[in-house]
Amino acid sequence: MNRALNFNAGPAALPAEVLIEAQKHLLNFNGTGMSVMELSHRSKPYEEVHDGAISKLRTLMNIPDDYEVLFLQGGASTQFSMVPMNLLKEGQTASYILSGAWSEKALKEAKKVGQTSILASSKESNYNSIPEFTLSDLSSDTAYLHITSNNTIFGTQWQSFPDSPVPLIGDMSSDILSKPIQVDQFGLIYAGAQKNLGPSGVTVVIIKKSLLERSTDALPTMLNYKTYADNNSLYNTPPTIAIYLLKLVLDWVENQGGVTAIEKINDQKAKLLYDAIDESEGFYNGHATLNSRSKMNVTFTLQSEEATKVFLQQAKEEGFVGLNGHRSVGGCRASIYNAVPLENVEKLAEFMKKFSQK
Amino acid sequence: MNRALNFNAGPAALPAEVLIEAQKHLLNFNGTGMSVMELSHRSKPYEEVHDGAISKLRTLMNIPDDYEVLFLQGGASTQFSMVPMNLLKEGQTASYILSGAWSEKALKEAKKVGQTSILASSKESNYNSIPEFTLSDLSSDTAYLHITSNNTIFGTQWQSFPDSPVPLIGDMSSDILSKPIQVDQFGLIYAGAQKNLGPSGVTVVIIKKSLLERSTDALPTMLNYKTYADNNSLYNTPPTIAIYLLKLVLDWVENQGGVTAIEKINDQKAKLLYDAIDESEGFYNGHATLNSRSKMNVTFTLQSEEATKVFLQQAKEEGFVGLNGHRSVGGCRASIYNAVPLENVEKLAEFMKKFSQK
Repeated sequence: MNRALNFNAGPAALPAEVLIEAQKHLLNFNGTGMSVMELSHRSKPYEEVHDGAISKLRTLMNIPDDYEVLFLQGGASTQFSMVPMNLLKEGQTASYILSGAWSEKALKEAKKVGQTSILASSKESNYNSIPEFTLSDLSSDTAYLHITSNNTIFGTQWQSFPDSPVPLIGDMSSDILSKPIQVDQFGLIYAGAQKNLGPSGVTVVIIKKSLLERSTDALPTMLNYKTYADNNSLYNTPPTIAIYLLKLVLDWVENQGGVTAIEKINDQKAKLLYDAIDESEGFYNGHATLNSRSKMNVTFTLQSEEATKVFLQQAKEEGFVGLNGHRSVGGCRASIYNAVPLENVEKLAEFMKKFSQK
Repeated sequence: MNRALNFNAGPAALPAEVLIEAQKHLLNFNGTGMSVMELSHRSKPYEEVHDGAISKLRTLMNIPDDYEVLFLQGGASTQFSMVPMNLLKEGQTASYILSGAWSEKALKEAKKVGQTSILASSKESNYNSIPEFTLSDLSSDTAYLHITSNNTIFGTQWQSFPDSPVPLIGDMSSDILSKPIQVDQFGLIYAGAQKNLGPSGVTVVIIKKSLLERSTDALPTMLNYKTYADNNSLYNTPPTIAIYLLKLVLDWVENQGGVTAIEKINDQKAKLLYDAIDESEGFYNGHATLNSRSKMNVTFTLQSEEATKVFLQQAKEEGFVGLNGHRSVGGCRASIYNAVPLENVEKLAEFMKKFSQK
């Protein structure tokens, strides 16, 4: 099996085991004589997939009972609007910490809904770090505090989370399930699946049940978190094939030993690449400051655009995929989500060393 | 290959050829060494899928150049809100023709957005027909007229469409691509994919370009049709696996000879079941009136609930799947979308005859 060395930022690599399992049963799921995509979403075989995905995510992330796990569509970009539509009331302010382009987009959508403020931002240093902030600066009318836990474009990541006096909302699209977190530090966590959870097309929302009281019936039904909570995310037809693949990815994470084991491998993977950068004596320059480095997206530049071009071209010839930096910042980026095998990262680190020595 | 006799209402049967093709390339799409799900949505191999799906749908449905073809998420239920949010302005009225439960849901969401009216309804006869209406009853402030072209729950279908003086909006989730239609009779057509187009998780919107002018920038970005039109439905990560499967279904329709050929087979399939009902001398009773019968969902009852139960039980034992009527109306329903093979329908008609003779 000739698999690519896939470092795509998202949609990203999936575990080969997941794809093989999906392939095997694509025409006949669980002896039904049907593909999982052909099952009614109200049938028992599908419900087992659906409920199984929810309960496995609960176990892997150790999600407390007073939280709901919901499956939605539309990606994190839709959550940028749903969060304020559901949680921000008139007379309140939604507070945002800006750590990159996705935070900015989240803020932009909140501004359409109500009053907002910026608690901190690292924009002036081209988002090369998670900004410093003081929780006591939050005004008393703050509805929630929004953060982006990992910044795919700039390669920075929160190393720990604050105990916020207001509900903390985390866009965890690019580092959910990459390490153990304490869910009860958050009011709501959301994540598009296409980095660590599965294919694009399903969005996971983990919400504290008490926050559901903020959603009013005046909201469009499909944009109301209560609709999903009250109907086990089956009010309308869910994206069944995406949820099935999500379930397979969760099974795979469990087989790896859970998130604690996954974190150890992720640490190894990140160390390999950051060492290659740090030991290159300035040949490669990491974009992120040391204490904000992301273990999911390693961003770096070479000394000139010309050198970057040659590096990317040779990498491509060696079979590496997805190493171009985001079109908005340039340079290079290696995305090393859960499903990227350690040996592929070793190959990349090796290639980087060889290239810099030439 | 032991395939079920799948008469599910949606998600529904997919062509076996499509599943076989998807299965074959699930780990290595087009020699990339990656699954189609692992491709960047901004990469050439994915773009070919994406643009290929759009252009094939244009060809198959003969969509005029002054219409955009968009891919969204969230199903028809999200369109119930997006249509009025984008197209209904203050001081205008959105008019609805009620032909079933889905029309009612569409109206309910529009009421949250603005002023609405009901041009006609067949609710009093338990939605057993497409209601009569008079276009001249539309008030001069009408923003659009909304219809549901096929009613999955009640088994009724519009046989032709009116030349409306205001933009006609068609929820075609359950009969798109089942027969040739004249797109330019509509201002906007929308359809969840999971009946005739592919798996659940992608929604197709076909919109007349001039209507895009009605969408204001105050809308949430992801709920604004302009976002999709301006970015070729690639503003954020689209549901790539669902769009890929949609593309394969469109290829399959083309291989069948296009929608004209598909319509002929659909006519045959529907005739088989309606004949079985009509020739049963009252053993089976069709729910829909003769001139409103759906060629996608054949709904019928037996003379008692007990008889229905026995029928459904024996059908199940014979391998038929999905024949229960919708939980809101009971009875029986056979959904015979494009991908349900003629021979499966023959088997069902045969079973119905045998059962009634016993």
